[in-house]
Amino acid sequence: MLFLDLIAKKRDGGRHTPEEIDFIARAAAKGLVPDYQLSAWLMAVLCRGMDEKETVALTRSMARSGDMLRLGSFGRPKADKHSTGGVGDGVSLALAPLAAACGLAVPMMSGRGLGHTGGTLDKLESIDGFRVRLELPEIREQVRRLGLCLFGQTGMLAPADRTLYALRDATATVPARSLIVSSILSKKAAEELDALVLDVKVGSGAIFRDAKSARELARALVKTAKGLGIPSVAVLTAMDEPLGRFVGNALEVRQAVDILRGDRTAADYRECLLCLGGWMLKLAGVAKTQAAGERMIAQRIDDGSGFELFCRAVKAQGGNEAVVRNPDLLPKAKMSRTVLAPKSGYVSILDARKIGHAAVMLGAGRAFMEAELDYGAGLELLKKVGDRVDKGEPVAILYAADNARLDLGEREYRDALVVASKSPRARPVVLEVIR
Amino acid sequence: MLFLDLIAKKRDGGRHTPEEIDFIARAAAKGLVPDYQLSAWLMAVLCRGMDEKETVALTRSMARSGDMLRLGSFGRPKADKHSTGGVGDGVSLALAPLAAACGLAVPMMSGRGLGHTGGTLDKLESIDGFRVRLELPEIREQVRRLGLCLFGQTGMLAPADRTLYALRDATATVPARSLIVSSILSKKAAEELDALVLDVKVGSGAIFRDAKSARELARALVKTAKGLGIPSVAVLTAMDEPLGRFVGNALEVRQAVDILRGDRTAADYRECLLCLGGWMLKLAGVAKTQAAGERMIAQRIDDGSGFELFCRAVKAQGGNEAVVRNPDLLPKAKMSRTVLAPKSGYVSILDARKIGHAAVMLGAGRAFMEAELDYGAGLELLKKVGDRVDKGEPVAILYAADNARLDLGEREYRDALVVASKSPRARPVVLEVIR
Repeated sequence: MLFLDLIAKKRDGGRHTPEEIDFIARAAAKGLVPDYQLSAWLMAVLCRGMDEKETVALTRSMARSGDMLRLGSFGRPKADKHSTGGVGDGVSLALAPLAAACGLAVPMMSGRGLGHTGGTLDKLESIDGFRVRLELPEIREQVRRLGLCLFGQTGMLAPADRTLYALRDATATVPARSLIVSSILSKKAAEELDALVLDVKVGSGAIFRDAKSARELARALVKTAKGLGIPSVAVLTAMDEPLGRFVGNALEVRQAVDILRGDRTAADYRECLLCLGGWMLKLAGVAKTQAAGERMIAQRIDDGSGFELFCRAVKAQGGNEAVVRNPDLLPKAKMSRTVLAPKSGYVSILDARKIGHAAVMLGAGRAFMEAELDYGAGLELLKKVGDRVDKGEPVAILYAADNARLDLGEREYRDALVVASKSPRARPVVLEVIR
Repeated sequence: MLFLDLIAKKRDGGRHTPEEIDFIARAAAKGLVPDYQLSAWLMAVLCRGMDEKETVALTRSMARSGDMLRLGSFGRPKADKHSTGGVGDGVSLALAPLAAACGLAVPMMSGRGLGHTGGTLDKLESIDGFRVRLELPEIREQVRRLGLCLFGQTGMLAPADRTLYALRDATATVPARSLIVSSILSKKAAEELDALVLDVKVGSGAIFRDAKSARELARALVKTAKGLGIPSVAVLTAMDEPLGRFVGNALEVRQAVDILRGDRTAADYRECLLCLGGWMLKLAGVAKTQAAGERMIAQRIDDGSGFELFCRAVKAQGGNEAVVRNPDLLPKAKMSRTVLAPKSGYVSILDARKIGHAAVMLGAGRAFMEAELDYGAGLELLKKVGDRVDKGEPVAILYAADNARLDLGEREYRDALVVASKSPRARPVVLEVIR
């Protein structure tokens, strides 16, 4: 098989056979084909598309291009959640221990933040000593023992995805739906899951701002996951404003701890958490209905077992448990600034993407892959969409290392905020469930 | 300007500004952008296309990406011919000296053969000592002195084309029309011509087998050349069977010498030669009409001045003039084999592409860029389409280094030959002129 012929086939709108797809995935994983040929193929895929069968085959071949997690059977169904990425979306931090406390095995594989989107790994690393780079044996052992592990993609899990993902980023081929789907699901397929819940964000802070594109992605994800034999549901959730009350790495760990301890101030965060957790338990067969699953999750908040499990996981992965028990010990930014409402009225817009950019300006996010993070930096959102504000009242607290960053962050924050005289129509966080 | 943004723009069907195109050409020429980004852009161009303005801008920017030939003004109009490539198409060898003998300055920039298509440089190198790798000052000096020079693309002429051409070959992006056009014309634009004749081949041995695609390419070439200010005509010529009586490097030099000495056996070759030469002279303003130009070319054959000029050019470029004056001194293959007609009738098909493949099998062409050539190898076509043959009568002589190659070549030759009971309809070589 010649790679050149496969490029030409896709260029001319042809459909790849599973054997061809497997050849491509192995070539990408093992470096058997030069980058310039892979990138020509990626652009041909973007322009001509891949159908469902091709997408399933690519996902499977990418998953099999390296090691599988191979947790084996040990009495707990294996479940994971994936979010397409948003601002303030630290739900994984709380969801993993809660779902594990309900009896699931949760190998939670996460990524880093880039651009306006945060990453679970960065948030975890704001906990003193926490290790996210684990080898497969350690991940297996911890999931079997505690029921959860929070880790980053290792070199051996779906290596084809690592190659293709990096190349897509550099060749403007990120938006190809079949490539998004296979990238997300190849890593999940390598975990050999019994249930997968996909949190597909919609709105200014999401990959797809419009509901139509997000819905199409959600459908493709669910179809492909099912094609791979993974019971799966996609939940469309709003990302017009940031989720919860905090944006930033240590700040979002604090948010998760608050939530795990029963705090209900961040209602949207809790709604999202319960919904996703309910579906994980339902799909895995632990709860009879999604609603019953939600109640189980809520109960693990109320009895504190979710929080205790989080503390054990932090300790198991080298993190300082005391920091989680007392979030005041988390990294703090050198400076802070309180932003006051420019006028009286109701918060009608708090643009998620702009808030994400503000977080990058403040030092909480990365403008490029190699950028250093300030774990304490970020925003505390005192007012969210729908809240009543009086002129001069504090609406947010910004955290950063110096005044220059605070200036930049404040400008972005003020650009994100719209205060109107009328109260906006209340909007739910969970917009739609696609099964 | 970020190259990534330019890829995304073309990916989404956008049109590049001349500034963007210039950035791309310079990046390709100077290696400022990684190959994988260039190849993603090439595939986006193939899928989304480029309009006339973009193609003109790309051609100009590619021409200007290196040195220009800068012959300056010295009393002779500068004219060149380009063929899209065929089998037995050694017309350049005879046309360059004839056109120069008529008063044109002919900087004939040629390429090497690849696959079933022959290359003028390889043919010239079958003349003992002939040098095709000349630097610009030497090319300038020789064109000013003799009126012609036969040379290969140097590293400094249109370097952007060298990069993009190599990458297109390796990424299945060769067939993008705008890229074919800009590749061909960028080198011609670097010559700052007063006239350009494009020989666009149609048929089994051509890039485009069907007249529609060839015509579209011819139109795009003429439009773009005019957009660059180069007076230009495209001639569609038949490439269903090989041109002339010989296929192979030294064999085609012999063919050219025969033609220059007035031989009329290869009627199709002579027809093609006169037509193209007539247009060169007409466009350059040396002949009033194309027909008058044809007569001038024919006269330079009859008076021997074209042949004498060819001998002088061969000598000037280090070649052994005696070889040209006595073609029996040209390299000869070690072995030959005469093929006999399988039955009586008329030759109705002599498939050009298959004959080209036979030539590769015999050692006259390259299956890949680094392959060694046997300059004496090839085919002598004793019978061509329309000729009457009797069973057992010689139809071709094959030349190669050994019997194994002769076997392979004979199989391909026999596959290319169809003898039918009825005489085929006579078809002209020159099919259409596009101005």
